[in-house]
Amino acid sequence: MIDLKNDLLLRAAKGEDVERTPVWLMRQAGRILPEYRAVRNSLSGFKELVETPHLAAEVTIQPVDILDVDAAIIFSDILVIPEAMGLTYEMIEKKGPYFPSTIESEADFSKIRVATGDELQYVYDAIELTIKELDGRVPLIGFAGAPFTILCYMVEGQGSKTFSKARKMLWARPDLAHRLLDMITESTIAYLKRQIDAGAQLLQIFDSWAGILSAEQYRVFGIPYLERICRAIDLKVPVTLFAKGAHFSIRDLALLECNTIGLDWNMPINLARQMAGPQRTLQGNLDPTTLYASGKDIVKQTEKMLAEFGPNRHIANLGHGVYPDTNPEMVKIFVETVKAYKHEKK
Amino acid sequence: MIDLKNDLLLRAAKGEDVERTPVWLMRQAGRILPEYRAVRNSLSGFKELVETPHLAAEVTIQPVDILDVDAAIIFSDILVIPEAMGLTYEMIEKKGPYFPSTIESEADFSKIRVATGDELQYVYDAIELTIKELDGRVPLIGFAGAPFTILCYMVEGQGSKTFSKARKMLWARPDLAHRLLDMITESTIAYLKRQIDAGAQLLQIFDSWAGILSAEQYRVFGIPYLERICRAIDLKVPVTLFAKGAHFSIRDLALLECNTIGLDWNMPINLARQMAGPQRTLQGNLDPTTLYASGKDIVKQTEKMLAEFGPNRHIANLGHGVYPDTNPEMVKIFVETVKAYKHEKK
Repeated sequence: MIDLKNDLLLRAAKGEDVERTPVWLMRQAGRILPEYRAVRNSLSGFKELVETPHLAAEVTIQPVDILDVDAAIIFSDILVIPEAMGLTYEMIEKKGPYFPSTIESEADFSKIRVATGDELQYVYDAIELTIKELDGRVPLIGFAGAPFTILCYMVEGQGSKTFSKARKMLWARPDLAHRLLDMITESTIAYLKRQIDAGAQLLQIFDSWAGILSAEQYRVFGIPYLERICRAIDLKVPVTLFAKGAHFSIRDLALLECNTIGLDWNMPINLARQMAGPQRTLQGNLDPTTLYASGKDIVKQTEKMLAEFGPNRHIANLGHGVYPDTNPEMVKIFVETVKAYKHEKK
Repeated sequence: MIDLKNDLLLRAAKGEDVERTPVWLMRQAGRILPEYRAVRNSLSGFKELVETPHLAAEVTIQPVDILDVDAAIIFSDILVIPEAMGLTYEMIEKKGPYFPSTIESEADFSKIRVATGDELQYVYDAIELTIKELDGRVPLIGFAGAPFTILCYMVEGQGSKTFSKARKMLWARPDLAHRLLDMITESTIAYLKRQIDAGAQLLQIFDSWAGILSAEQYRVFGIPYLERICRAIDLKVPVTLFAKGAHFSIRDLALLECNTIGLDWNMPINLARQMAGPQRTLQGNLDPTTLYASGKDIVKQTEKMLAEFGPNRHIANLGHGVYPDTNPEMVKIFVETVKAYKHEKK
């Protein structure tokens, strides 16, 4: 076990006092850094990078070196879980993920099984390598997709604005939806436990499509599966839940055994704090397009956000993954502003 | 002036007592009816239908005949405004709208002008024909896109999950964004006034992409332009504002000179009522995927929604346009359930 030189992220997640607010960015590994593109362009595709531990570790550490963030997040994809369950995905350049085969009927369940976790050894290898190479500089975040979001891709087969096919299953065949969610949940629990064993020091669950459900449906098809995952992790490491767009669910999420609730940029901070209560850390939520503004405006908006969240129980981040055409210099301004900020004494 | 035999929609919008809740569906004209597809397939494309008044009138009236809804909404598209301003659009089958030319820099403003409204005579002709053919059976709704949503298309040139290019302009060139919003707003006011002159009895403003902005940015780039439109209409006819996804803006919208606030299906009804106050009618908000459920479940969910909204100041609708693969028989069950529902006396 390597001692952490910078454990601000973990302490903020647990609600301990921190000297300053920790900061990292969703999608910091990949997308924006020229150093990432150099690695990526030397390969056949995105999946080769995900599946090659020493390269995944390399691009995971790049933002720690270059952007000086307070955490690394393992370079991977939420879609490794459906693949481990039996549905192979392709990552199509500029279009996104595509599943040649999907789950639409009872018969389709013959294509899939509950993953044991063994299928994803390359992720654990990448985590171990990263932990070794980071040598305690900052914590490493592991992650997985939330069961509902994974169901969306397994049923729809690709991204969609409405995911109406996936949502159709919730109404037309709720029995199949629950069966699939159950299988995804079991697979995800096995996967996350192995990530902890490999060295992940915090886990984030991404429910990227939570926002397309009504509050009522999210209570049926979203929350109970997140609850099972949280119980299984049992706070062995801090857990962050990020249900993008699900402004209506913050109260429900805050009742689960988690430490941190991620907020998108649409969510008013004071309202989120009211809904989450004082016992949860909030993560977020600068509008990612703020990084297109001038340096002066980025400083102003970042400081405004920090003041509103207050000194404790906050992890600074964007409200969504950093957009691909963001200038890394502007990301540095954001990171430096968080690090330099002094909260007013009350 | 033809007397309306069914003015439930207008009375509900104005907050008057109604015998029962009125009901219509966003996107009821087009998309789901075989009778619509028969007309559509006889033509070269979507735009020919929009621009041919007697056919636009025909598909506008179809849902009144077939689904027995309490309002017609003129068959058209929000993108006629950028076109009237000088940017032609194409509607690409299964992909959506596409603008070969966009507004990205100061120089691009030479491509556009403020529309006088004269450019869209075909819309007014369609409205006049529809009013005549409806013969007072139900009111006719006119509509336009909100300035921010129109800006999104004019800058981005097509649909997008994040509209990051359009949002980039808000931060990088707010001066250009305001200049463009100002031109769109003036064009839209001229257009909506002409729709009223032609006979539109209620106007709905669709801010389809409001939900991608933060509350703060919506206050700068959204609300002030809606405010100008509302002031210019001056309640000559009832006005509905539908800012999809902008859960954070309901309080702000309710302060404008409008009658009705549209809600998407994510918005908890009680919270929306709190935010909008008692002086505004609410429209919505059944999850459109509910129409994939069994008839029994559709009835149950519809009745639950009606009970929650209460007997007055509600216009029943979905929380989004009806999805293309919805069975019209299921829409009929939704409509009939609303019409048959008796609110419990308090």
